[in-house]
Amino acid sequence: MAKRLLNDDRLFPADANTRPIAKRLYATVRDLPIVSPHGHTQARWMLENEAFSDPARLLIIPDHYIFRMLYSQGISLDELGIGSPSLDDPRRVWRIFAKHYYLFRGTPTRLWLDFAFEELFGLVDRLSSENADAYYDTIVAHLQRPEFRPRALYQRFRIEVLATTDSPLDSLSHHEAIRESSFKGRIIPTFRPDAVVDPDFDQFPENLSRLGQVTQQDTGSWHGYLSALRKRRLEFKAVGCTATDHGHPTAATADLGPDAAAQLFQRVASGNADAGDCELFRAQMLTEMARMSLDDGLVMQIHPGSYRNHNDQVFRRYGRDAGADIPMPTNYVHALGPLLNRFGNEAGLTVIVFTLDESTYSRELAPLAGHYPCLRLGPAWWFHDSPEGMMRFRELTTETAGFYNTVGFNDDTRAFLSIPARHDVSRRVDCSFLARLVAEHRLDEDEAVQVVSDLAYGLARKAYKL
Amino acid sequence: MAKRLLNDDRLFPADANTRPIAKRLYATVRDLPIVSPHGHTQARWMLENEAFSDPARLLIIPDHYIFRMLYSQGISLDELGIGSPSLDDPRRVWRIFAKHYYLFRGTPTRLWLDFAFEELFGLVDRLSSENADAYYDTIVAHLQRPEFRPRALYQRFRIEVLATTDSPLDSLSHHEAIRESSFKGRIIPTFRPDAVVDPDFDQFPENLSRLGQVTQQDTGSWHGYLSALRKRRLEFKAVGCTATDHGHPTAATADLGPDAAAQLFQRVASGNADAGDCELFRAQMLTEMARMSLDDGLVMQIHPGSYRNHNDQVFRRYGRDAGADIPMPTNYVHALGPLLNRFGNEAGLTVIVFTLDESTYSRELAPLAGHYPCLRLGPAWWFHDSPEGMMRFRELTTETAGFYNTVGFNDDTRAFLSIPARHDVSRRVDCSFLARLVAEHRLDEDEAVQVVSDLAYGLARKAYKL
Amino acid sequence: MAKRLLNDDRLFPADANTRPIAKRLYATVRDLPIVSPHGHTQARWMLENEAFSDPARLLIIPDHYIFRMLYSQGISLDELGIGSPSLDDPRRVWRIFAKHYYLFRGTPTRLWLDFAFEELFGLVDRLSSENADAYYDTIVAHLQRPEFRPRALYQRFRIEVLATTDSPLDSLSHHEAIRESSFKGRIIPTFRPDAVVDPDFDQFPENLSRLGQVTQQDTGSWHGYLSALRKRRLEFKAVGCTATDHGHPTAATADLGPDAAAQLFQRVASGNADAGDCELFRAQMLTEMARMSLDDGLVMQIHPGSYRNHNDQVFRRYGRDAGADIPMPTNYVHALGPLLNRFGNEAGLTVIVFTLDESTYSRELAPLAGHYPCLRLGPAWWFHDSPEGMMRFRELTTETAGFYNTVGFNDDTRAFLSIPARHDVSRRVDCSFLARLVAEHRLDEDEAVQVVSDLAYGLARKAYKL
Repeated sequence: MAKRLLNDDRLFPADANTRPIAKRLYATVRDLPIVSPHGHTQARWMLENEAFSDPARLLIIPDHYIFRMLYSQGISLDELGIGSPSLDDPRRVWRIFAKHYYLFRGTPTRLWLDFAFEELFGLVDRLSSENADAYYDTIVAHLQRPEFRPRALYQRFRIEVLATTDSPLDSLSHHEAIRESSFKGRIIPTFRPDAVVDPDFDQFPENLSRLGQVTQQDTGSWHGYLSALRKRRLEFKAVGCTATDHGHPTAATADLGPDAAAQLFQRVASGNADAGDCELFRAQMLTEMARMSLDDGLVMQIHPGSYRNHNDQVFRRYGRDAGADIPMPTNYVHALGPLLNRFGNEAGLTVIVFTLDESTYSRELAPLAGHYPCLRLGPAWWFHDSPEGMMRFRELTTETAGFYNTVGFNDDTRAFLSIPARHDVSRRVDCSFLARLVAEHRLDEDEAVQVVSDLAYGLARKAYKL
Repeated sequence: MAKRLLNDDRLFPADANTRPIAKRLYATVRDLPIVSPHGHTQARWMLENEAFSDPARLLIIPDHYIFRMLYSQGISLDELGIGSPSLDDPRRVWRIFAKHYYLFRGTPTRLWLDFAFEELFGLVDRLSSENADAYYDTIVAHLQRPEFRPRALYQRFRIEVLATTDSPLDSLSHHEAIRESSFKGRIIPTFRPDAVVDPDFDQFPENLSRLGQVTQQDTGSWHGYLSALRKRRLEFKAVGCTATDHGHPTAATADLGPDAAAQLFQRVASGNADAGDCELFRAQMLTEMARMSLDDGLVMQIHPGSYRNHNDQVFRRYGRDAGADIPMPTNYVHALGPLLNRFGNEAGLTVIVFTLDESTYSRELAPLAGHYPCLRLGPAWWFHDSPEGMMRFRELTTETAGFYNTVGFNDDTRAFLSIPARHDVSRRVDCSFLARLVAEHRLDEDEAVQVVSDLAYGLARKAYKL
Repeated sequence: MAKRLLNDDRLFPADANTRPIAKRLYATVRDLPIVSPHGHTQARWMLENEAFSDPARLLIIPDHYIFRMLYSQGISLDELGIGSPSLDDPRRVWRIFAKHYYLFRGTPTRLWLDFAFEELFGLVDRLSSENADAYYDTIVAHLQRPEFRPRALYQRFRIEVLATTDSPLDSLSHHEAIRESSFKGRIIPTFRPDAVVDPDFDQFPENLSRLGQVTQQDTGSWHGYLSALRKRRLEFKAVGCTATDHGHPTAATADLGPDAAAQLFQRVASGNADAGDCELFRAQMLTEMARMSLDDGLVMQIHPGSYRNHNDQVFRRYGRDAGADIPMPTNYVHALGPLLNRFGNEAGLTVIVFTLDESTYSRELAPLAGHYPCLRLGPAWWFHDSPEGMMRFRELTTETAGFYNTVGFNDDTRAFLSIPARHDVSRRVDCSFLARLVAEHRLDEDEAVQVVSDLAYGLARKAYKL
C-alpha cells in the first residue's frame, strides 16, 4: 500500500456496521461545491493573485491555532516571528514548528495540515525535524507554480462563494475590483461593524468620525449614525454582501425607546459612558441591526462569548488575535430576550447564533432555535470546530432543533489553504453522525442522503441567501 | 422483508458485540407493565372513555414538541389551529404536518410518532405529503373502533398505574368517579400546587381565595393557608395520590422561622410582594411541602429551571404551553441547601429532583443524590427525554449516584398515544447503556438483567410508593 | 474458563476494530512504574510498616466514595462505624457493605474493589451477603502476611514515587524518618497550606500562631507571615517535596499591591475580616504562592470548586470529609486572570489546574492551558476520576490543549490498596481513547504508543519535576 498521510476512511466510525454507511453518505457529498459564508481570508489575495511566499508566512504566522499551542509549551512568539514586521528566517520558524509537530496530535490542526500537505503538496511522510527542510523546499517549489496562485486554488477547491469579513470603515475597493476583473469567482464581503458599534473597541471615537466621513452623514447624532450604518450596509450589499456579523463579549440585546437610545448614544459618542453603558449600547445595537435587516434583508450573525486579549502582556506586545482569546460562560435565554421579543417572530428575519459555551447547546440554543422563526444555529465554532466538537454539536442540538434549524458549515478561517480540509472534516463528521442514526434505525438511509447534502451545501446557501 | 417503519433493533448500538447484549436485556423488559408516575394526560378521558376525534386534535394540537418545530420553520400557529376554540379543518392541519415531517428527522418526536403509526394503526410507509390523506383516513377509521377507546388502550398498553397532574383548585371529581366506575385501571392524581404557591402565577390572589373556599380554611392567614394545603393533600391522597410536583423557575429553597414566614405570607397574599419576596416565598414553600411530606408521606418532585413563556407575543395570543418555554442555567448546590439542611437526612422523605440543565448532572445532582438519603434523581426531562438525552443522563450520573438513586422513567406526556412509545425508547436506551457496560466488562450480564428491570419498572414503583 | 472478577479486556471499547488496538497500546504501559504525585495516603504507614487490621478499617471507614453511597440509601453512618473512635465489630460493617454491594454497579468504586479483591486477595466470586464472611476471613488472613505490609505492597505495586499531602503545621518527622530508614521507596510530602492561608479554615488564628512557632517568624505581620511560608516550603523541599496544593472554594486569584495586601492580612489575622476579605485573601495568597514558586521551583496545584461540608448535621456530628462535599459551578477565565497576568508567561512556573465542573473543560480550561506557558491541566478529579469522567476529559480537552498540556494521572486516594487499580483504570481509558483516534485514522499507532507512555508515566514525572 502506498504511503499516505490521509486514510480514505479517516474520521468515520470504526464500527463495521456503521462505517460503510458513512462511506456511502460521504460519497454523495465529497465533491459538492464549497459554500464558505463566513471566513477571514483576504479579498486582496484573489484580486492580486500573487504567489504565496513560503510555508511559515502561509501556514504558521497567520494561524493562532498553531502558534498558541507552541507558545503554551514555552516557545516564545518572537522565535516564531509573530509581531515582527518582517520575517528574517522563515525556514527557521518552519523547523521549530516541525520539531514540535507532535504537540498537535489529536487536534484539528493536525488534520487540516496533513490534508494540505498531501492533497496540495504530495507530501506523504509525517512532518518531523528530519524532513522539515524537505517539506519546506517542496512547499516553496509548489507555491511558485501558476496552479498554486489564489485564483487557481479557488477553482481547484471547487469554491462556489467565499465571504470575507469587513469593517464598515474598510474600503470595499478590493471587492469592487474583483467584480470588474476577469475572475469568475464569487467573493463577497460581510458587514462586521464592531469597530463602530462597540464603544470598547480601539479608537471608537475616531471610528465614528471616519464612519461619518465615509458616508457623509453626521455620526455625532443618533439619527445620523443610524443613517450612516444603513447606507454602509447598502453599499456592502451592492458588492454582494448578504450577511452581517457581530462579535460581542456577551449575547446581550436591548430594546430601548428612541429617546433613551439617543441619549445612550450621546454618552457613548462623547466618551462619557461607563461599562454598563457600553454593554447596553452594544445590546441596543444588535436590536437596531435586526431592525435594519428587516429592511435590507441582510442575515445577522451573532458570535458572542469570547474574552478577548486575556493575556495583557501578550496583547501589549503582539496586539489582537495573538491566541489569547478565551471562551466565557454565555447566557442566551435572558440575553436574547429583548431582541427576540421585538423581532423574533418575523419570518423575514434570519439571526444565526454561535456559541463558545457548549453547555448552552442543549440547554438554551436548541430550545430557542426550535421555537423562534428567526433563529438558526451556527455550526460548532472556533475551539469547537473539530471532530469531537462537531459531533457534540449534532448530539446536543438535533433532538430539539432538528437539522433544519442549523445552517451548514462555516470554515471561519484565516488560512486559505485549510478551506477544503475544514469542509472535508465537517462533511465526514456529519456523515458519521448520520451513519450512526441510520445504523441505530433512527433515520432511513435515503433520508440521511438528503440531510447530508443539505448540511454540506444546501442549508448554507439558504440560510445566508446565497 | 415486509415494509416497516420500526426496526426491531432500533436504538441499540450498532456494534456487533454490544447489540446482542442489548437485545437480550431488552427481551427481559419489553413486556413489563408500564408504571407512569408523572404525566399530563386527562383523567376525564378515562372516565368518559369517548373516542378520540381525529389525528390533528389527537396528535398535533396538544403536542408542543410538534408545533414548536413547525413554528420555528415559519409555519404560523394559526395555520395549525393552535389557540382557536374550534378546529375547522383538521385534515388541512394534518397535511401541513405531513408535508413537514422531514423536519423531525433525528428527533424523538419522529420515534414516538412512527411507533404509534405502525403499532397502533398499522401504517408502514413513511408519512409524507403523498400519503397524508391515506394516513388521516386510516387513523380516523381506527379511532372509531372500540379497541381504540381510552380504557381499551390503557389495557393494551399494559399500564399498571397512570398519574395525572392536578391543581389543589381542581375538583377531583373525575378521579373519584373513575374509582367508583367499573374501570379497573389505576388513575391517580398528583398534587401540583403552583397556582396557590407561586405568587407570580396567574390570578394568585383569587387562587388563594378559591383554596380557602374549597378547604373551608382561612387562607388569609399563614396558619390557615398551611392548614388548607395540608387538608387538600390529604384529600388528594384519599383518591390515590402518592406525590406532589413543583414547577418553580429555580430550585431555591428557604428555611425561615415561623414569624418571618408568616410575615412573608402576608406580603405575598396582600399583593405587596416584590420579586425577591415572590422567589423567597416559593423557596420557603418547598420546605413547607417537605415538612408536610414527612407527615403525610407524599413524595416530592421538584421540576425547576424553565423560563416560561419566553415569547411575549406568542404568550399574549396563544397563552401558556405554546412551545416557548426555554431552559435556564440552574443551580442546585446552593439552592437546595436550606431544605436539605432542614430535612435532607430524613430517611422517611423522598425528594425527586429534575433538571433542564445537563451541566448539573455530574457537577451537582449526582453528587447530591449520592449523599443525601432523601434525594433521588428524576429521569432526563422534557427536551432531554430523547435517546441522546437519556444516554447522557446515565453516562453523567451513574458513576457517582449509581442506578439506585434514580427513579426509573417518567413519560411526562400530554399525548396518551405516545405513552408506550416513550417507555419503549427509555427501555431501549437503558438496555443500550447497560449493554455497553457489559461489553466493556464493567458489569456482569446477570446484574444488568436486574438493573434494567429496576429501571423499567421496580424503581418507579418504589420511589413513588406505588 | 476459570472464574474471574476481572476480564482482561475490561474498559476497552467493544468494537472489534478498536479493541485490538487498545490491547496493543495497553501492553506497552501495563507494567510501567506508578508515579503518584498527588494523594492522601499516610507517610506513617510506610514508616511503621504495620499490618493493616481488617477489611472494614482498611477499605470502608476511610473511603468516602463508599460510605456516602451507603448513606444515600438510608444506612446510617453510625452503623458503619464512621465517626466513632473505636470500631467494635468490623465484621458487622463488612456485612452491611457486602449486602449493599449492588449499589456500586456502574461506579468506579466497584472497579477499584474488584481489582483489589482478585489481584491482591485471589477472590473471584462477586461479593455478596452470602460470601461476606468468607471474603472477610480471606482478607484478614492475607493482611497478616509479610507481603501485605505497606512497604511490600509499595514494591509489589511498582510505585516509583508516592506523594502525601501535608499541612505546614504538620511535623515532617515521618518523612524524615523514612528517608533515614532502610526503606528504599520514595515518599514525598506535598505542601498544602489551606490551614494557614484560608481564613475560613478551622482555628485559623491559632494556626497562624502555630506557624509562627514552627518557623520562629512573626506571623502577626504580613512580612513575617510570608517569611514563615517561604521557610516552611524550603523545609518541605528538603525532604523531597516538589509541589504545593491549594484547595480553595473558588479559583479566584488577586494581585494586590504590597500595602493593600499587608492591610488585608491585618484584617484577616485579627479576625476583622468579612466574607469578601476572606475570599480576597485566599485569592491573593494564590498569587503569593506563585511568586514563591518562581523562587523555589515548587509546582503549584489548584483544586477549586468544592462546596465543603454541605450537610450541616453530618458535619457537626462526623466532621470533615464525611462524603458531603459537593461540586459547584466554577469560573476560571476571570478568576485566574490576576495570577496569569502577573506570572502566566513565566516558563519557569508550572500551575496545574483541576476542576469539578466539567463544563469548563472545553470552554475555559483547555483554551487557557493551550495558551499560557505556565498552565497545565490536572486529570479528571474526584467524582470524575472514573471511566466516563476520564473519557470526557480527553474528549473535551485534547482538541484544544493537546496531550502535552496535561500532566498524567493522579490517584488522589486515601485508600492505599486502590492505587494500582486506579492507575490501571486510567491507563485502560487512555488506551481506549487513543485506540479510537487510531481506528478513526486521526493518529498513527506509533504515535499513540508514545502518547500513552507519556500519559501513564512521562508527563507526571515531568510536570511534577520528579
